[in-house]
Amino acid sequence: MAEPVARRVRNLVHADPEEVSLQAALDALSDPVRRSILRECAGEPDFSRACGTFDLPVSKATASHHFAVLRAAGLLEQVDKGSRRLNRLRRPEFDARFPGLLTLVLTEGAQPRPPQA
Amino acid sequence: MAEPVARRVRNLVHADPEEVSLQAALDALSDPVRRSILRECAGEPDFSRACGTFDLPVSKATASHHFAVLRAAGLLEQVDKGSRRLNRLRRPEFDARFPGLLTLVLTEGAQPRPPQA
Repeated sequence: MAEPVARRVRNLVHADPEEVSLQAALDALSDPVRRSILRECAGEPDFSRACGTFDLPVSKATASHHFAVLRAAGLLEQVDKGSRRLNRLRRPEFDARFPGLLTLVLTEGAQPRPPQA
Repeated sequence: MAEPVARRVRNLVHADPEEVSLQAALDALSDPVRRSILRECAGEPDFSRACGTFDLPVSKATASHHFAVLRAAGLLEQVDKGSRRLNRLRRPEFDARFPGLLTLVLTEGAQPRPPQA
């Protein structure tokens, strides 16, 4: 029987999305590698993707930095399970704080332009 | 009788908002001085504010750069009238291209957090 993910959570610091500034959100989203991480997470079940499984065009240290920025901006929730750090896109929370912003990121490149409101 | 603004337009290059990338939009909006310019424009009639009338905490050269970035990102339309460069926030066009994004900028700081969708 699989052990519940929450049982293995270490003390990872997570931002309260309501406390995240627009500046922090824009800074986090301004990097194309970080946006690609979010799009990959959006396509998979919560806490199913470990940080090490993303094929990113950056060094391991830089990748770690990107994940930390996304966590600090309230965009990712992470839990450690054994040696793996699993990710969840905090879509409902982030959508509530910054309506529409994450949708722009997730639909980027999917079509010539996002559907009009 | 006031001369129509359009009669005095010089060859200022304006981006087609549909051609603006999310990267360019996020880069343009990631600067707090540029966001403050947009908020000021939003509160006034189109083409009523000259670039020189904004009280910005930066040098004149840096301010000119900020206006150029906003124009290139499809956020400002500018016309030259005599010695003044007048601005219009391209809200409908930008909203159509990036729904919700400009609203986040214009409501920044206006309340603890934007209204939920």
